[in-house]
Parts: sequence; structure tokens; C-alpha cells
Amino acid sequence: MSGYTDGTAIAGIGATTFSKDSGRSELHLAVEAITGAMSDAGLPVDSIDGLVTFDMDNNDQTQVCSALGLGDITFFSTSPFGGGGACMIVQQAAMAVHAGLADTIVCYRAFNERSGNRFGQYVAPPAHPSAAEVRWSWHGAHGLITPAGLVAMSARRYMHEYGATSEDFGRIAVIERANAATNPAAWFYQQPITLEEHQASRWIAEPLRLLDCCQESDGGVALVVTSLERARDLQHKPVMVRAAAQGMSSGQQVMSSFYRSAISGLPEMGLVGRQLWEQSGLAPSDIQALILYDHFTPFVLSQLEALGFCSEGEAKELVRSGALALDGKWPLNPHGGLLGEAYIHGVNGILEAVRQIRGNAVNQVADIDHVLVTAGTGVPTSGLILGVA
Amino acid sequence: MSGYTDGTAIAGIGATTFSKDSGRSELHLAVEAITGAMSDAGLPVDSIDGLVTFDMDNNDQTQVCSALGLGDITFFSTSPFGGGGACMIVQQAAMAVHAGLADTIVCYRAFNERSGNRFGQYVAPPAHPSAAEVRWSWHGAHGLITPAGLVAMSARRYMHEYGATSEDFGRIAVIERANAATNPAAWFYQQPITLEEHQASRWIAEPLRLLDCCQESDGGVALVVTSLERARDLQHKPVMVRAAAQGMSSGQQVMSSFYRSAISGLPEMGLVGRQLWEQSGLAPSDIQALILYDHFTPFVLSQLEALGFCSEGEAKELVRSGALALDGKWPLNPHGGLLGEAYIHGVNGILEAVRQIRGNAVNQVADIDHVLVTAGTGVPTSGLILGVA
Repeated sequence: MSGYTDGTAIAGIGATTFSKDSGRSELHLAVEAITGAMSDAGLPVDSIDGLVTFDMDNNDQTQVCSALGLGDITFFSTSPFGGGGACMIVQQAAMAVHAGLADTIVCYRAFNERSGNRFGQYVAPPAHPSAAEVRWSWHGAHGLITPAGLVAMSARRYMHEYGATSEDFGRIAVIERANAATNPAAWFYQQPITLEEHQASRWIAEPLRLLDCCQESDGGVALVVTSLERARDLQHKPVMVRAAAQGMSSGQQVMSSFYRSAISGLPEMGLVGRQLWEQSGLAPSDIQALILYDHFTPFVLSQLEALGFCSEGEAKELVRSGALALDGKWPLNPHGGLLGEAYIHGVNGILEAVRQIRGNAVNQVADIDHVLVTAGTGVPTSGLILGVA
Repeated sequence: MSGYTDGTAIAGIGATTFSKDSGRSELHLAVEAITGAMSDAGLPVDSIDGLVTFDMDNNDQTQVCSALGLGDITFFSTSPFGGGGACMIVQQAAMAVHAGLADTIVCYRAFNERSGNRFGQYVAPPAHPSAAEVRWSWHGAHGLITPAGLVAMSARRYMHEYGATSEDFGRIAVIERANAATNPAAWFYQQPITLEEHQASRWIAEPLRLLDCCQESDGGVALVVTSLERARDLQHKPVMVRAAAQGMSSGQQVMSSFYRSAISGLPEMGLVGRQLWEQSGLAPSDIQALILYDHFTPFVLSQLEALGFCSEGEAKELVRSGALALDGKWPLNPHGGLLGEAYIHGVNGILEAVRQIRGNAVNQVADIDHVLVTAGTGVPTSGLILGVA
């Protein structure tokens, strides 16, 4: 595996406020985040020559260009599979910078996911359903149609196989809400929870309680990818893209990989992890903070195992040990994650990784060299290792 | 601009029959095309480790993997903007091979675009419209809602500015239908047209006649991208990806860039062209065949100008001179194009370029070194130069 990302860096980040009702259009949110990121990088907005977003983003590049008055754009792409593409947008930008296709690539994600189109709710298939939509009819007919319901299947099996409990899931939520409580940008700022509150929260889809499920949020985030060489001349300490990988594994479906011989694990995240370690030459012991995609708490445990931070089935012990707390060996989502800060489809976590590497996060972890970031689980996914230059 | 594509090649191609009613699912078409392409490359299907398609393709990579029984996939991406992404899928694959992310990447496009979801018809916006859909309300309210209607705006202005006539548009159709007439894979095999028939065909959206508009088709196509080094060991002569570029320009909208100071040209294709020449070090005189996206004939003229095959406004003279005929200086769409062969969103044209470089096309152009291929016009677009290894 080549070091294709080695010469690339994140040079700027920008975000809107995170809310439940932004009161402004999704395009407004995108523009606000992008101009913020360019300002943070110290670059003029009209120097943007590449734009990457999610294929689910309602603000396609033409609208962003129009709103910002941009000229020639020589690289544009979109990531598939929702939150699974969160880290892929940075991979795309890194590939394009490496190939010499563009110099100043902005990755963005902006939506009114709470006040507008909510992902947690069922949407009927269109008149000409896709192959994936046809496949959903295998389980949709039995009422298995929401993200929480689908993830509950894997979570229940994980509990059965490894002896993990609802309290173990709850410990993830407690850690993240503690972090959010001291992050003024978080929706749940100053609102920590106890394990007892987690245990008392209502079932959404057993074994998932309300406090196992991430928020729905309105907001926008953006980041600027450029060459490391150029980033060194800009106003912030450059954040290197040390590795970027994607993974899709045998039997992979979108939130419904139920026909695998085992449904308790995340082999696609294992595939991402192996590539990240191989590309970077690093190992779990070289990582000082974890930004793990946490739309539902059980998949945080599976990720720790798939990525090699512990053995299969042992994540519950890792969580119980305190290793994931802010002062632990591998602090988890210091910003509060999707559970505590906001659900901006995982991209807000990449911004937190940048702040941690820069050393100016509100919940700063000491002596950071590398942060590992993951994208959505239960779908084809992606991951990053960001590091000091 | 680096030669990021230099080490990459197309090693296999596959296609289904092209029809108006395939009688099989879109997934079936995708699988048929992909297995055909892998067989053509002489590679086992289970060696696929990358999959690229359109974000509009109903067969996402999870369904293709499931149907083909594939294992680990380490690169997957989708191209935005419909036909504008036709060449971008090869660019994506070339970038990934160059980055070392995957070795055997299949690009595919399959749909029942005639018997299923037809693009030529108006679709009402959803409950939560995107920014682009909101923008469509500026002209949609006046009835400007179909592709033909939208392109007619630019075509009328082009005629006004440069003195091009409906006959000039017709000459494109006549050339392509002549090529299709001797291509057994073409829907319009053995059905050439005369300029008189073109002129007698009915208005679809003035100044576009029926015979200025491409077909709607059912079908699937696929191609295999790998390293040039590996391709040299396979059964066919490798087809090098000499250049691959994207372009989006100031004032760019999707089929509706009406707020530019001029609406008769295709500046985004000019941007693609400049990059193709710069990446490859080639010039129009080095190209022996043109695969130009031809959903509507007028944009073929604009492309010839934007790419530098003639000066602005002079494409009509180039067409009248016979240069685009099969025995001319720059044969246009020897397979018959979207007008004559089939509308597989532009990707069937890439397959024709591969056959021309291999030297085994049914309407083979003599002494081919390089073929230029373009993607959809009126939208953010992309282009390729393929060449002999």
C-alpha cells in the first residue's frame, strides 16, 4: 500500500451552530460552514477548486458554487452510503490532491436532519425501487424498517455471544455525555447523564434504549484539504492525513447484513482498520484519541474489536476499565460524539480530530500524535488516521 | 498536472444487448455486463476489489457484491450529475489504482431507462427539495422541465450567434445513424437516415427535432480498470488511460445554466479539454476518433469548439466538411453514439473507445493511437483520452 495520503493535510475547519431547528436553509448552512473553513485556513473563498460531499447532501456542488460565486472547479465527487462515507470524503480529497487534480478541496456536509428530512423514520420505496430497496422487502415486511430496529438485531446477538449488557452500552453514552457536557458547541452542553438515567430511559427498539441512540440534528460542517507543503505556509499547524481507507465485506448490506454467518461483528470495519494500520505503519498503541461513529452505542464496542483495540468480545472489559474516558488510555469522542455534540453524519467528528491534533480542543487530550476516526457502521464504511505533521 | 493516470489501463469490457424492454432486472443487467467484462479481461470475477458506478445507478455496490458473491472491496465510489459523470467513473478508478487502493476495479452502469424510469419525463420534486430543485422552480414554473426543453434554450441561442441551422444539427444525426447502421449491437442497426428525414421529423422542443434527440434504452455496460503493468499480462492489448478530467464552471447549473452572460457554449467542457491536453501532452491533431456525448445534437457542435477541434462558432463548417464521417479526419462516434447505438448514459461510448484502441471495432478507424471521450453536456462533466500502450 502506497503512502498516497502522505503529502496531504487538513488546513481549515468550519461549523455552524448545531441545533434541532436551524431556521435557515440547508444551502445557508453549507455556505456558512465552508466560508468558516476557508477563513480558518486563511484562504480566499474563490480559491476553492474542488468540492466533495455526500450523495445524500441536498446541496450539490453547483448550488454551492453558485451561492459562493466560485469559478472553475476541477474536482468534485460524492460519497455513497450515508454516514459510511464520512471519512471517504477526506479520502477522495486526498486522492485528488495526490493526483494533482485540485489544490484547495473543501469537503462539506450540511442538513436540517431534525427540522427537515429525518433519517430515523421510514420512507416508502419509490415506484422503481433499487435493488437494495427490493432487498429491504425481505425484512421490511416484518416491521424491521428503522435504523434503530435494524441495529437492534446485531446488538441483541452481540449481547448473546459475548455477555455484554445494556449497562455496557450505557457506559459509552455516559462517557460521551460527560464530554459533551463541557463542550459549549454540543447540543447536550452541561447535561451529563448517569448510568442509572441510561438504564431508566425507554426502549426504542430493544435492546436499544433512548440514550443508546444518537441525536437528530440540524447543522453544517466543512474542512479544507490541500497539500501538506502548502498547509505548512498557512495559519494553523497542518493536520496530516496519515491514512484513509474504505471497506465493504462479504454479505454486506445497508444496515441489514443479516444473511452473514455471524451478525455480531463489523468485518467491513476490520477491513478498514487493516488498511489504516498498513498505510500508516501505526498500531493501536500509537493512537491517543478515538473518534468512533456512535449513532448507536453497541457498534462502538464492535468497532473497538474490529480495529484491534481489544480482542473479539472483550470491548465490554475495555469500557468497564475506564480506558475510554477523557483521562483514559484511549479517550472516546472528546467532543461528545453524535450522541452528545450533534449528528452531522460523522463529519463533525473529523473536525474534532483536527482540533485535537492542533491542540486546541475544548476537551483536549494531552500529548496527541494520532487520532483515529471512523465513519458509519452497519453500512460500507471508511476511516482515517490524522496526525501531527 | 501529474501523470496520475499513466500507470493505469482498461483491461476488459462487457455489455448486455441494448433494447427498449430488457425483460430483466437492472441488477441482472449489471451482473451480466460485469461478468462479461471480467471474462473479457480473463480475470476471475472474485478478484474484483473495487466498484464504481453512478449515484443514479439503482444497483449499488452492496447489491452487486451480493449477486456476484464478492468478498472484500477496498474502493467504491459513485459519480454525480448523471451523464456528466460517465468519464469520471474511469477517473475514479484510475485515481484509486494510482493510489494503490485496489487492483481490479470494475466501473459499471446498468438500467432499464426505457422500460422503467425514463429520464426524459418530468418528475415532481420531493417534500424536502434540494437547493438545485428549489432553483429549478425559476424556470420550471414556465414549463421548462424536460431535458429537451432545457437544451433547446442553448441550441436556439447557438443558432442565433453563429448561424448554425437545423440541417447542421441534422448532419450529426445522419453521420451517427450511418455508423449505427453497420453496428449489429446498435438499436438502429441497418436503419440509416437521410438529412431529409431529419428535416421532416417532428419538433420535440423547437429547434430540436425528434432525430436530434438520443434514444432511451435498457442495457448495462462495464469495464475493468487495473494497472498498466498487470494489463500487459492479460489477454487483450491494454488500453491506457492517458488523461482523465472533470469540469464545473462559473454559473454552472444542472441542464439550466441560463444565468451566464452567454448560454451558447460549454465552458465546463473547455475546462475538461484544457486539462486533458495538459495531462496528456497531446493536441487535437493527435486524436484519431471522437466519442462525444450526443444526447442532443447541438451540444456536439459546442463540444468540438470547447475542446479545440475548431474555433468558436465554426463547428458547423467542420461538420459540413465531412471531417466527422467515418472516413474523415475525426470520425465521430463510430459505434453510432447515444443517437444510434444506445443511451447507456455515455458509458457505452467508453467501451467503443476501447474497441477502437484495440483495433477490433465493427466500424474500425485506421491507425488509431488516441481516442477522446466526453461525458454529458449541460451539466458538470468529465472527459478521457484513451490511447495505445
